[in-house]
Amino acid sequence: MADELFPFAPRGSTEEVEEGRALAPKFDADGLLTCVTTDAGTGEVLMVAHMNADALQRTIASGEAWYFSRSRRALWRKGESSGHAQRVVEMRIDCDQDAVWIKVEQAGPGACHTGRRSCFYRAVPLGDAGALMLEFRDGEKLFDPRAVYRQKP
Amino acid sequence: MADELFPFAPRGSTEEVEEGRALAPKFDADGLLTCVTTDAGTGEVLMVAHMNADALQRTIASGEAWYFSRSRRALWRKGESSGHAQRVVEMRIDCDQDAVWIKVEQAGPGACHTGRRSCFYRAVPLGDAGALMLEFRDGEKLFDPRAVYRQKP
Repeated sequence: MADELFPFAPRGSTEEVEEGRALAPKFDADGLLTCVTTDAGTGEVLMVAHMNADALQRTIASGEAWYFSRSRRALWRKGESSGHAQRVVEMRIDCDQDAVWIKVEQAGPGACHTGRRSCFYRAVPLGDAGALMLEFRDGEKLFDPRAVYRQKP
Repeated sequence: MADELFPFAPRGSTEEVEEGRALAPKFDADGLLTCVTTDAGTGEVLMVAHMNADALQRTIASGEAWYFSRSRRALWRKGESSGHAQRVVEMRIDCDQDAVWIKVEQAGPGACHTGRRSCFYRAVPLGDAGALMLEFRDGEKLFDPRAVYRQKP
């Protein structure tokens, strides 16, 4: 386990984790932390995904976004299928070091596998406890996911 | 379980979840989804936290941010101890409906329990696979957490 976490520091006291300069990420029971990805230009949240230690290391080392897919149980480089890679402009980590925020330059028309710029293309109306109908916002499809993500022969 | 999820819709097909207008959130094995909270004015990511079904319902109904603390296993309204509440300007949900993004007006000087505006006050240097030293950014403490979060008598 120690080798797996290299070059990360061991978790220290709360004071060390919150006020220190050592990168000591807290991976959950599945070995993952949360990553929020925003557009470096507009600030828009493009996606929320997960990173395991390997994905985090590769992202830091390469400056390109790598994630871990929970559904596929696999490491992936954003854009490896679609070409829509993400160059990381800045990475931040939060107080308890269980989440990172990356600001990226998004290649291609969008980050979402549905064909949209952002995964967050629907708003939840507030103040209505009854039947909730989502409202599409910025929901235009900018590319055809069937063409972009189709299996290579 | 069905009652607990009211007023949320059951999970349908992938097409229904991604392209439909029904709010059908996907809670994880612990009954949680991820919430990204940004400043409605600046776009800055203030915090990443979790919501259970109850927290999500209360946030939608009240327009104020409610979360579920994994460490304390408790529902909490942001600001109930500190006074630093969050008024939700807009809520978005992502393609597979396992994460929400709320844009908020943050009351008080900051969202982070360490006394800072945002929980993301340290940057992770990129391109260096060796020993990683975090860099403080916007790391000024704007309030004294010992005073703000102290137990009431």
